Amino acid sequence: MKKVKVGIAGYGTIGQRLADGVALQEDMELVGVADLAPTLSIRALFEKGMPYDLYLVNDSHLEEFKALGIPVAGSFEDLVSNVDIMLDAAPGGIGIKNKEVYKKHGVKAIFQGGEKSDVADVFFHGYANYSAGLGADYLKLTSCNTTGIIRAVDALDRDFGITRVALTIVRRVADPGDYHRGLTNALELEKAPSHQALDLMEIMPHISATGILIHTPVTHGHMITVLASSTQKLTKDDVLKSFNKHPRIRVVSKDEGFLGNASFFKYARDLGKPRGDLYEIGVWSDSIVESGNDIMFAMYIPQESITIPETIDGIRAALLMEENQAEATSLTNSYLKITK
Amino acid sequence: MKKVKVGIAGYGTIGQRLADGVALQEDMELVGVADLAPTLSIRALFEKGMPYDLYLVNDSHLEEFKALGIPVAGSFEDLVSNVDIMLDAAPGGIGIKNKEVYKKHGVKAIFQGGEKSDVADVFFHGYANYSAGLGADYLKLTSCNTTGIIRAVDALDRDFGITRVALTIVRRVADPGDYHRGLTNALELEKAPSHQALDLMEIMPHISATGILIHTPVTHGHMITVLASSTQKLTKDDVLKSFNKHPRIRVVSKDEGFLGNASFFKYARDLGKPRGDLYEIGVWSDSIVESGNDIMFAMYIPQESITIPETIDGIRAALLMEENQAEATSLTNSYLKITK
Amino acid sequence: MKKVKVGIAGYGTIGQRLADGVALQEDMELVGVADLAPTLSIRALFEKGMPYDLYLVNDSHLEEFKALGIPVAGSFEDLVSNVDIMLDAAPGGIGIKNKEVYKKHGVKAIFQGGEKSDVADVFFHGYANYSAGLGADYLKLTSCNTTGIIRAVDALDRDFGITRVALTIVRRVADPGDYHRGLTNALELEKAPSHQALDLMEIMPHISATGILIHTPVTHGHMITVLASSTQKLTKDDVLKSFNKHPRIRVVSKDEGFLGNASFFKYARDLGKPRGDLYEIGVWSDSIVESGNDIMFAMYIPQESITIPETIDGIRAALLMEENQAEATSLTNSYLKITK
Amino acid sequence: MKKVKVGIAGYGTIGQRLADGVALQEDMELVGVADLAPTLSIRALFEKGMPYDLYLVNDSHLEEFKALGIPVAGSFEDLVSNVDIMLDAAPGGIGIKNKEVYKKHGVKAIFQGGEKSDVADVFFHGYANYSAGLGADYLKLTSCNTTGIIRAVDALDRDFGITRVALTIVRRVADPGDYHRGLTNALELEKAPSHQALDLMEIMPHISATGILIHTPVTHGHMITVLASSTQKLTKDDVLKSFNKHPRIRVVSKDEGFLGNASFFKYARDLGKPRGDLYEIGVWSDSIVESGNDIMFAMYIPQESITIPETIDGIRAALLMEENQAEATSLTNSYLKITK
Repeated sequence: MKKVKVGIAGYGTIGQRLADGVALQEDMELVGVADLAPTLSIRALFEKGMPYDLYLVNDSHLEEFKALGIPVAGSFEDLVSNVDIMLDAAPGGIGIKNKEVYKKHGVKAIFQGGEKSDVADVFFHGYANYSAGLGADYLKLTSCNTTGIIRAVDALDRDFGITRVALTIVRRVADPGDYHRGLTNALELEKAPSHQALDLMEIMPHISATGILIHTPVTHGHMITVLASSTQKLTKDDVLKSFNKHPRIRVVSKDEGFLGNASFFKYARDLGKPRGDLYEIGVWSDSIVESGNDIMFAMYIPQESITIPETIDGIRAALLMEENQAEATSLTNSYLKITK
Repeated sequence: MKKVKVGIAGYGTIGQRLADGVALQEDMELVGVADLAPTLSIRALFEKGMPYDLYLVNDSHLEEFKALGIPVAGSFEDLVSNVDIMLDAAPGGIGIKNKEVYKKHGVKAIFQGGEKSDVADVFFHGYANYSAGLGADYLKLTSCNTTGIIRAVDALDRDFGITRVALTIVRRVADPGDYHRGLTNALELEKAPSHQALDLMEIMPHISATGILIHTPVTHGHMITVLASSTQKLTKDDVLKSFNKHPRIRVVSKDEGFLGNASFFKYARDLGKPRGDLYEIGVWSDSIVESGNDIMFAMYIPQESITIPETIDGIRAALLMEENQAEATSLTNSYLKITK
Repeated sequence: MKKVKVGIAGYGTIGQRLADGVALQEDMELVGVADLAPTLSIRALFEKGMPYDLYLVNDSHLEEFKALGIPVAGSFEDLVSNVDIMLDAAPGGIGIKNKEVYKKHGVKAIFQGGEKSDVADVFFHGYANYSAGLGADYLKLTSCNTTGIIRAVDALDRDFGITRVALTIVRRVADPGDYHRGLTNALELEKAPSHQALDLMEIMPHISATGILIHTPVTHGHMITVLASSTQKLTKDDVLKSFNKHPRIRVVSKDEGFLGNASFFKYARDLGKPRGDLYEIGVWSDSIVESGNDIMFAMYIPQESITIPETIDGIRAALLMEENQAEATSLTNSYLKITK
Repeated sequence: MKKVKVGIAGYGTIGQRLADGVALQEDMELVGVADLAPTLSIRALFEKGMPYDLYLVNDSHLEEFKALGIPVAGSFEDLVSNVDIMLDAAPGGIGIKNKEVYKKHGVKAIFQGGEKSDVADVFFHGYANYSAGLGADYLKLTSCNTTGIIRAVDALDRDFGITRVALTIVRRVADPGDYHRGLTNALELEKAPSHQALDLMEIMPHISATGILIHTPVTHGHMITVLASSTQKLTKDDVLKSFNKHPRIRVVSKDEGFLGNASFFKYARDLGKPRGDLYEIGVWSDSIVESGNDIMFAMYIPQESITIPETIDGIRAALLMEENQAEATSLTNSYLKITK
């Protein structure tokens, strides 16, 4: 089997995990990752023996790399010219500049949620609008919260036809080890409606969505409550069935020991998952309550890793590796060892 | 004017603030407060010159009080036998034992939300069911979150007739200076539905309520999102009008600088409020969004002080000082300098 | 008695407290405070009835003030031209620009610790080098941590002659209500030696000082351990006597309920102190341990309010209101009701 | 080579990591782990296919295990009777009871730091007093902080002869995912001297040690400042050399990106270390400062995993697998892939 060739721009929180995820896909070849400076993550890459080739976005830190003995495989253009598709996980605002390089070399790209929407032709989610990505040149993935919310809402929508969602997003404010952002003993409100609700409507235009977002001073994942309405009454049993059969959703309970976001992180570490990462979102069975004809539930989003599967789905769509959504996501899941 | 005589059991977070609040009521006399040990709060009371007389629940720490030179006015029964009503702010589970003393002396009492419901004849909220408290012997106040939620929902209910609410309670896990409880870098889910939703239905039985509660590692107040339904469509303008006219609700915005719960605490300190306390809840005007015919908004609850006004309302009801709710709450507001 | 006239530049965390503190001095007149925009603190000033006149640094937000109905007493130059001394609590880097206005009007000024040292002629501490400030035109106060450290070290130095200190500064990273800075689930090291150690040596050049600073995600005050050496052996009793007699040092213990920084904040709130502020630093008696001939102890710094007394001492020095340090600090303490 | 047989009591934070560490030792066989209930960690063990056999301490949760389909290999006594040594990582206070079972079966044991000291014959550290453990029946390991402090102090002691240390321990208050303990926006002081200083003196009686401990609301590792004295002057270069050559110490700097405790955790995750664990402590080169003849520096302790290597050293000592400390620790390091 001929493998498609993939490059990664930006070896930060998302870029590293994209690299790990792509490396597991048997029908893809990870050509390399591109970054700028010898960050902690690059130093760690070096200490573990350079499993991925490193390309430099520019020469601004070249001397440091030499002094540290970190091997450099080439320039950013060397990388781009040698791949079929780039996964762009550069900091927000850089992707639009990188796009010029992708265009020049006729290479497709998938941008992450931090980039502005007009960077891409298609705003993409692996389950909810896979077909929109087929053959597209430039995709932008939904953000971490939106990706998880859509997974859950799409699961219900397929079974019951969802018409309205009202979200309360309790957002972790920084990733573990992140010293650039932070909040200390404070909750912070965003003006409503939250962008996640607006983004959901772009992907699923038949749904009326709104939401309120509150930042909280924690690092181990977002928690979200969803109130969902259908044209029919939704029961707890109904939605449990939908969630239980979804490969990228874990249904858990407090009685099992899942007390909150930090329990998921602990569980993934105890599982031995690299970096303590989970690809699945969580839904608490004991959070599901009926409200009139509507249903309300609480979910968990592992912000560092959640977009990896849907981004890899995007490669399959953009490069026309697989036309059928169910087949494509199933293949991604299988290589990522997301099993149910 | 003959003043009614009031005693306080428990000089903790709530007890102190009840004492301060009662002391401001010109038609009430604060006879004293009862506690057990020379806690930090009792030491502070002593350092500021014993503005309130102190009674001892028992003699277990009597020698310490003597050694510290803190004057003791008498026993718990001395206090109870000398008042018309006790405000019981003892730790959860103690109130039911104190009730025996109140009964013995034929003294009425108002318990705080931490006590079990069967301690009281009436579950009480100053606005939503004032008349139920008229002449009652034993009232139990709604908890801090429920008190605030009901204030906001009752405001809308009076104007529009509310039929359903769905709550997401983002709860502060401990008070400032509280070393007994705590959460570190973790959000914790409670099993749904939250007790606040159930309690709301007890006070407002015509409303269908449910809710999900998430504990967060902060100290400066709860934040809650409310989705409310009426038989009519609710608009942002509608609900703003209701909130703006309510004396115990402050309508604020992010543009003014109210970024989250900690902004309210800062603002109250800057106002020079004793202890940095506010009696009002907050509603963010820029959080209000329409969801179909429903309305959604975010509010703030100052957990340490919010139940003070409604507890004082309860004194007026239980002792038949005022039969009319609007008159009673207006009097409380006036003495507490809650002005709008 | 003719009162000296004082103005304040910057109505933030420090500026507000300087205003409150100066207003209590019976030999000083607070002419007004200057700021720029209708911040939360200015809105609070307005809501409490403008106890201090407000001057505008420039007209950039004038329309907002008009729309809000907040009265403006004049321009920055109006304020400066009408005072004997300015207390500059503007954000770091602004003071040096303000100094041009002070110079133009021949007005003295005291800058806070955030400003660069060369803004001033004298680096000042009310106890440790009072006489250096006598008649000086431009003073810069030590920062909050340094002010508190020097208070404690100076107390020991007077009694025992301190030769060396080694500091570990466990720093609160943000003030309550501060959304501009923050740290989430992380400790952050500063490169050693910390500036506080260097600053101490500038004020007390006979002492060899070094220190390591670690930022922690809390808001209610710094905690510092000090290892101090003398030419003689220091005992726990020795240092307790020094600390106990110092009016701006509170000696406390865990057994009393002072468990950490948050206990002090709670205690000050329970005392009814405006904003929950303390002017004193704390030393835990049960933290004091001997290490060979040296002594080690832990102290508490209320970062928002600690520099207020020493800044007011600075007014007395700069304006030659009192030549003797003991008299000057005693007067400041008396008006601030710091009693021992 | 005949392998020694090892069992683990308690599959919590430490027990899991002991199991992983022992499993890597080519001269040891991990017979199994014992626990009580289907905790999250046991559920994770099951989900990853039971790499270790599970024994049940008692039958109190047997039905749950059956219902979940988690295989049970036998009873606690089945495990104990089948091993040469038990590593007891049960919650504090349980080890002393387990010891009766170990005695009955004539099996040696190594207890963790949470157990009281009289549970063991020897208080043990792999580097500082290896020979004391030779052939001993019951060892107790130093606690996580003490283990790391002694590593660093022993490194200096070997080269320069340390006479005095003064510690400031900035302690993380809970592990990631720990919902049982917590602190919110508060620092908490322990009464001095801290037990770590006392414990150090038990292992290294020629050193005079004291220390102050402050709990902080973070989860990703302790940070400690050490002031160390020798009979000679200690320079930064001196101590850097000692630290650089120690296999279980990583020397890092802020310039590399190690900003604090959370950077180490991030780095270990980026390295792909299971659970994001490091066995090494960290010392910041840019924290090292001279104070007179003494040296002061800041170090990092990965509290979840640090005691694993020294506990495994203890197996080698107790079972007389290796009489020489350097050989023993080198073997442990080699199997754990601690390379320098």
